[in-house]
Amino acid sequence: MSGERPIAVVLLSGGMDSCVTAAVAARDHRLALLHSSYGQRTEARERRAFEEIAAHLQAPFRLWIRQRYMTQIGGSALTDASLAVPEADLAAAASGQIPITYVPFRNAHFLSAAVSWGEVLGARRIFVGAVEQDSSGYPDCRPQYYRAFNEVVRLGTRPETRIEICAPLVSMLKADIVRRGRELEAPLALTWSCYRREDLACGTCDSCALRLLAFEQAGVPDPIPYQKR
Amino acid sequence: MSGERPIAVVLLSGGMDSCVTAAVAARDHRLALLHSSYGQRTEARERRAFEEIAAHLQAPFRLWIRQRYMTQIGGSALTDASLAVPEADLAAAASGQIPITYVPFRNAHFLSAAVSWGEVLGARRIFVGAVEQDSSGYPDCRPQYYRAFNEVVRLGTRPETRIEICAPLVSMLKADIVRRGRELEAPLALTWSCYRREDLACGTCDSCALRLLAFEQAGVPDPIPYQKR
Repeated sequence: MSGERPIAVVLLSGGMDSCVTAAVAARDHRLALLHSSYGQRTEARERRAFEEIAAHLQAPFRLWIRQRYMTQIGGSALTDASLAVPEADLAAAASGQIPITYVPFRNAHFLSAAVSWGEVLGARRIFVGAVEQDSSGYPDCRPQYYRAFNEVVRLGTRPETRIEICAPLVSMLKADIVRRGRELEAPLALTWSCYRREDLACGTCDSCALRLLAFEQAGVPDPIPYQKR
Repeated sequence: MSGERPIAVVLLSGGMDSCVTAAVAARDHRLALLHSSYGQRTEARERRAFEEIAAHLQAPFRLWIRQRYMTQIGGSALTDASLAVPEADLAAAASGQIPITYVPFRNAHFLSAAVSWGEVLGARRIFVGAVEQDSSGYPDCRPQYYRAFNEVVRLGTRPETRIEICAPLVSMLKADIVRRGRELEAPLALTWSCYRREDLACGTCDSCALRLLAFEQAGVPDPIPYQKR
């Protein structure tokens, strides 16, 4: 065994949750940060957030991939320009309705890339910033989904590969994620969460509304500028 | 319920196994054929096979996607030009060694696209031409892998989505796949299996060797031309 810390692949969208997740992973791992441009509305702004966070964290491994075929598949307001991103409706999300911003089976595309890259790098863990409670209402953000995916990883890779998917925030409340990010000095000012805009965060889509509420509940200011709040 | 047959997404690489799988699916389903260019050596030739098979089968839905980020990840002789595709060694494959043509966790990328597209189309099944026995030695071609993936699909899609992954050839011998393809009048003459070449099949890589052996054991001629056999 070498004395080096193990490698962790972190799925870094550039949003608050993935940024805090990267800060969690950085305590015990060498970071391999993975970002996908999948044709989402705020693709360029999210990529900038990824690059800035990766530079801040001095990650030794970085990979930017394009999965733009997601726009050929569509089925979501994030990847189909003809479907509008609605105003926030956190009550609907909390009630278990699947919002129109759900991208069909999206996280499997990101996890697959992370596992492939992780297998080549010899990584031991994949970190993903999925959050179940108090959040999006997406089926692929629940703990049981990641448990099942771990079984696919075990069966679908080389016998000697030992990769575990970890979702350290999955059971946390958003306000606690803000607090945890601040404790870890995660660069929250570099993150981008808005589903709609790339210049100023709109402040009124589901993603902005959840983020603003989280900072409010944590009793700290959100360091990024908003069009409206 | 409409009287229309259900939609099945078929992962159609353009090889013999996926062609026979499409012919199996076509008996009871409307076909949605999915092909990925992932930077593999024989990308253009495989895509031609896909287009010709899709036309022959008159598939009402067709999708060609690019997953070329697989070449950024590498780790396989199929996606890294600096690694040569070796001469066939069927004994090594049969003994459970993972060959250098294994593309790390590749099939999860294809299945993820099939499930996303299937969810948008309202498909009921995903067909994949994986074959375990008598074949490649790849971990992601085994029945238990597809069972585990089905659990991920159940947990990671909308509650009303009912998609099942089917691998109808997974336990068949290659010679029986040839026979089944002929019974179903699958267009085997349009398929491409060679890992190395795009003009004439080399006849000596693992994939060509397995195919030639299958036709020989089935006692019928392989309808495609070879450089050497």
